[in-house]
Amino acid sequence: MKNKSTLLALILAAAASTNSVWADEKPFSIAIHGGAGTITKAKLTPQQQQAYRDKLTEAVNAGYKVLEKGGDSVVAIQAAINVMENSPLFNAGVGAVYTYDGAHEMDASIMDGKTMNAGAVSGVKHIKNPINLADAVMNQSPHVMLSGAGAEEFALTQGFTLVPANHFDTESRYKQLQDAKVKLRKAESELKAKSPDYQASLNGVPQIDYLDLDYKFGTVGAVALDKKGNLAAGTSTGGMTAKRFGRIGDSPVIGAGTYAENGVCAVSATGHGEYFIRYHVAGDICAKVKYQQKSIIQAADEVINQRLITAGGTGGVIAIDQRGNIATPFNTEGMYRATRKNGEPADVMIWRGR
Amino acid sequence: MKNKSTLLALILAAAASTNSVWADEKPFSIAIHGGAGTITKAKLTPQQQQAYRDKLTEAVNAGYKVLEKGGDSVVAIQAAINVMENSPLFNAGVGAVYTYDGAHEMDASIMDGKTMNAGAVSGVKHIKNPINLADAVMNQSPHVMLSGAGAEEFALTQGFTLVPANHFDTESRYKQLQDAKVKLRKAESELKAKSPDYQASLNGVPQIDYLDLDYKFGTVGAVALDKKGNLAAGTSTGGMTAKRFGRIGDSPVIGAGTYAENGVCAVSATGHGEYFIRYHVAGDICAKVKYQQKSIIQAADEVINQRLITAGGTGGVIAIDQRGNIATPFNTEGMYRATRKNGEPADVMIWRGR
Repeated sequence: MKNKSTLLALILAAAASTNSVWADEKPFSIAIHGGAGTITKAKLTPQQQQAYRDKLTEAVNAGYKVLEKGGDSVVAIQAAINVMENSPLFNAGVGAVYTYDGAHEMDASIMDGKTMNAGAVSGVKHIKNPINLADAVMNQSPHVMLSGAGAEEFALTQGFTLVPANHFDTESRYKQLQDAKVKLRKAESELKAKSPDYQASLNGVPQIDYLDLDYKFGTVGAVALDKKGNLAAGTSTGGMTAKRFGRIGDSPVIGAGTYAENGVCAVSATGHGEYFIRYHVAGDICAKVKYQQKSIIQAADEVINQRLITAGGTGGVIAIDQRGNIATPFNTEGMYRATRKNGEPADVMIWRGR
Repeated sequence: MKNKSTLLALILAAAASTNSVWADEKPFSIAIHGGAGTITKAKLTPQQQQAYRDKLTEAVNAGYKVLEKGGDSVVAIQAAINVMENSPLFNAGVGAVYTYDGAHEMDASIMDGKTMNAGAVSGVKHIKNPINLADAVMNQSPHVMLSGAGAEEFALTQGFTLVPANHFDTESRYKQLQDAKVKLRKAESELKAKSPDYQASLNGVPQIDYLDLDYKFGTVGAVALDKKGNLAAGTSTGGMTAKRFGRIGDSPVIGAGTYAENGVCAVSATGHGEYFIRYHVAGDICAKVKYQQKSIIQAADEVINQRLITAGGTGGVIAIDQRGNIATPFNTEGMYRATRKNGEPADVMIWRGR
């Protein structure tokens, strides 16, 4: 009898708890990433690890708070991304990497799954929070994608304050640029020695493909499902260290680095952007969910851990579906990331085993 | 008896003819477009109609010739696109429209279905044939997408000769810009009169959405299947008349304006680019073919004539599948286009009824 009544009490308690989360409130959740790469445990001191975990927690909670109050997913993802853009730990906003010529050229995009509206900026140099400018492009212009000085002219019409380029100067990123240039020169010399013809055809084009993976990563992003059932995705980046020629990566490309469609899924990517554009990764994951009825876990896994690996593309994504399920696959050693579902604490991870 | 032997002779002749086309030679075909829009019959004089039909015939034949000789589909589509880029009839290359500030900013992209490699340029001002620069980005750089002055710096490293900006000046396009500006000012005044708040929020941003459709169109593109079974797609454009703020349309966006994947399909789009980016049109058509086993005709029709119409997006695509089947749906009054399959003459069309 005692056992039976205990069981009953447990069942009632479970039902009450389920009720408070699932019946009174619609599910909502958020996932964020701060870049994927060859993040080995040996590379990070315990202090650095903690700094990343703290900032990821702060970012995911900033977005979660918006969702909890009933706010829109497009607002929540910006709140989360802003925290990372304002931290030098990530390759976005203040921590943006240097271009070959010693500048900072940032890309960002955002998509609202409810309206299928989207906004993107590429190559902006004086915008503190590029994700917010992408949002202004989405809501205040008839365009989806604005670039370079033109995007900053648009920013001025929208009341944005431009910041000086040195706002984005950090010593660690500057050192990365110097390291990258040394490696690029070495790679070029080796190529030249091996094959003068090949070198002639390259004609001084830096082969960033020969750089370590870590020079390509650090992009930040967020995806969220709000209580109204609306999905959103956003991505912000400084791009590749030592990039040249006005290179645009996947982050501002809708369907590649960012995609959101209500009823299907929302995705934000980080990795070797050229592969994410060619395999239109964000759009392909959602197409598998939509047309093949695959789960978000399976769809994201197939693209990141099968298709991209076969192609040689490294990186990862965060993805969320209409029920708030989250997938965070990556084919690199680590990916800075955090998730938080309604009523649960934040889950912060760097490696496969947390 | 006589009937029987006649029948036999017919069967043998048919077999011989089928044999020469289908057994000795692999199927190959090409499709091109020169833009979609409100092309009413009243708008074109018989002479203008003929000029378009002649140039489309020249372009499709230029590509066909490459395929017939066993050349690569990526070469064939460039041959076809170059003809249109070198004609003032189309909004690409020499006929590129004017930006709001009186410049020409051209976008182009190309994708090789065999390697899934891709190249794109945006906002170039001094490149005679932007599709060829996109090809150089694909083959001679580690990047997929280069923009603005950086893309032209890359062009110089590859031996391209820059042409002066006035190479792209044409009187008819200049008149279009003046017309567009008058209409934009009128639309802005009307908005201001209706709602001062709304105008304040726009803060002088020209609402190109209020322009006639024809200011948005004229992009050129080509898709092809070569004898080796390789698919390719390419797109080249001057963008929208009176565009501002470094606006990038769908043409240089892989997965939106251009996409090619062997075994699946190749697509080039033309239309109101913002919608083609948001609905990642080229990638979505191929996803329907790949994941839902839909025919190229059905997949392209569903996206252009159902999904885009519901969304309010106008334009069209040319699409080709692995067997050389071609679809050319558009939801506007007309789309300049031509197709040619192996052993057949060119088929040149402007409206639904040719």
